[in-house]
Amino acid sequence: MPKALHLIARPEGEPKDSDFELRPVESRALNDGEARVAVRYVSVDPAMRIWMTEQKSYWPPVKLGEVMRAGGVGEVIESRNPRLPVGTWVGGMTGVAEELITDGRGLRPFDARTLPDPTWALHVFGATGFTAYFGLKEIGQAKAGETVVVSAAAGAVGSTVVQLAKAWGCRVVGIAGGPEKCAYVKDELGADAVVDYKREQIGKALHETCPEGIDVYFDNVGGEILDAVLKRLKLRARIVVCGGISQYNGSGTPFGPSNYLALISARARMEGFVVIDYLHRGEEAITAMAPLVATGKLKGKIDAMEGIDNFAACLRRLLSGRNFGKQVLRM
Amino acid sequence: MPKALHLIARPEGEPKDSDFELRPVESRALNDGEARVAVRYVSVDPAMRIWMTEQKSYWPPVKLGEVMRAGGVGEVIESRNPRLPVGTWVGGMTGVAEELITDGRGLRPFDARTLPDPTWALHVFGATGFTAYFGLKEIGQAKAGETVVVSAAAGAVGSTVVQLAKAWGCRVVGIAGGPEKCAYVKDELGADAVVDYKREQIGKALHETCPEGIDVYFDNVGGEILDAVLKRLKLRARIVVCGGISQYNGSGTPFGPSNYLALISARARMEGFVVIDYLHRGEEAITAMAPLVATGKLKGKIDAMEGIDNFAACLRRLLSGRNFGKQVLRM
Repeated sequence: MPKALHLIARPEGEPKDSDFELRPVESRALNDGEARVAVRYVSVDPAMRIWMTEQKSYWPPVKLGEVMRAGGVGEVIESRNPRLPVGTWVGGMTGVAEELITDGRGLRPFDARTLPDPTWALHVFGATGFTAYFGLKEIGQAKAGETVVVSAAAGAVGSTVVQLAKAWGCRVVGIAGGPEKCAYVKDELGADAVVDYKREQIGKALHETCPEGIDVYFDNVGGEILDAVLKRLKLRARIVVCGGISQYNGSGTPFGPSNYLALISARARMEGFVVIDYLHRGEEAITAMAPLVATGKLKGKIDAMEGIDNFAACLRRLLSGRNFGKQVLRM
Repeated sequence: MPKALHLIARPEGEPKDSDFELRPVESRALNDGEARVAVRYVSVDPAMRIWMTEQKSYWPPVKLGEVMRAGGVGEVIESRNPRLPVGTWVGGMTGVAEELITDGRGLRPFDARTLPDPTWALHVFGATGFTAYFGLKEIGQAKAGETVVVSAAAGAVGSTVVQLAKAWGCRVVGIAGGPEKCAYVKDELGADAVVDYKREQIGKALHETCPEGIDVYFDNVGGEILDAVLKRLKLRARIVVCGGISQYNGSGTPFGPSNYLALISARARMEGFVVIDYLHRGEEAITAMAPLVATGKLKGKIDAMEGIDNFAACLRRLLSGRNFGKQVLRM
């Protein structure tokens, strides 16, 4: 019997297995206009850690007892909806569930044959890629010749930002943790320089890798890295506030960037954004990124775990930076 | 013999009298093209506290032994420069000095008869007013109907921002310290609501005075007020990072706004600026503000102390918020 994962407790610190409960999915007969979707993959994202709290955010918190919110892709396995014939791939907010019944609203069909793999609809050609593309373009306003620094550069969004910035003619410095990820960012993704935040003193390393300062900082982590970047901004620099993964598991007061007054002398800005505001422009991003994918300039790396009962472990893996590539859970 | 005030030590905490030394001003005969200016007033500004440190800023630090940097206004008392006849009023970076010799560069003549008082060239019709005008217009992008919150609302820049925002049709909430300043902000400047940060819990007070959230925050103080504002931003809010006076005297790590991740869900921005970038557009601001001054919608309040030997005391007064109105020192 297919199952769904329900949030039953608000995690303190790292999410625990016991914060969730597997419950059977309703498997009634379909009504006219409905389709049954077998979810194949769900996207495991840092923002999930925020959705689990009671914190006000761009979406309401997941209520206790509800199916855990997640983006996912799946196949129609039974249908009484002519627009969703059996075999159609769909993507959207499926939740962490093996199966669901839909009238089609909120799910978008896509042609999986045009993708290297269906997971790409969650990665480069999905919300992850759109986050990188619109964040770097609209908020970061990255221009050729500028120095772009990216944190969590081996992560899903970060690795896409590194490659896009390179393709747009920027000088790119990636920040990642550990020699394996750093080598990946430099050798595979093509960053001009890389900083290993686990091994190097971040301020010194930024001084060395960005001797003329930083034009754009795409921030996925917050914390001390953000603070170090603030001290090295070029005039009219832009900080793209995409996430703060270093702060998500903490239960105390998050780390505030004490160097934020540097925004004054640099005439710089920090700006937050949420990809859902750009989903209606997804085609624009896909059109821009497809040729880069075709020519090997934009690669996507998937880190998949198996099984709905591994969701909490998969999320812990992501939040502690043990993943390598876009984290997904295969259902 | 006229004197100038030299910085001889970098203050720790509050600036002390002993951080400065009065030295005689060179009073040689003028060369062709030169004029002697008797400085009448200098502007005492929060940014001075930063110029005294070794901190990188939009201007280099004042070197030890140099005359303390300051904006000022004065009268030409002797001249061998036909463009600066005796009796001309000039404004610019005079430094904290009773007298100076100039070839005219860096000083701008103005017609003191068109001003309520020559100090206005340091206040509403000078760098203070330009800071308020361009900060609110260009960085804050305040629009009619929006809610604008201003900290240090009884201060020089803050009081101008309150009145401009009201004139532009905004709803204005001023934050100030103590009943006298709060009454001034509400009754004299016309703010719709006022918060006494010394008496009220700032988060609760902002919740009550801005029930629908904040569109523009003009920040002169930083610290916990900024953090409280971040929790109450409306969608696409703008934070104008003008100053952080609450942090200037501190010797430890400044307070970082730990709620900055709220910029994400609000799709909001924090942006710094420096008025010197807008000085070339001063006429635009004067043209826009003059009718407001003429109709009594824009008032300037001056808080003057006397005597160059009182400079350090005057600066302490400003940094501790004991001033009431634009702080100047009459020479």
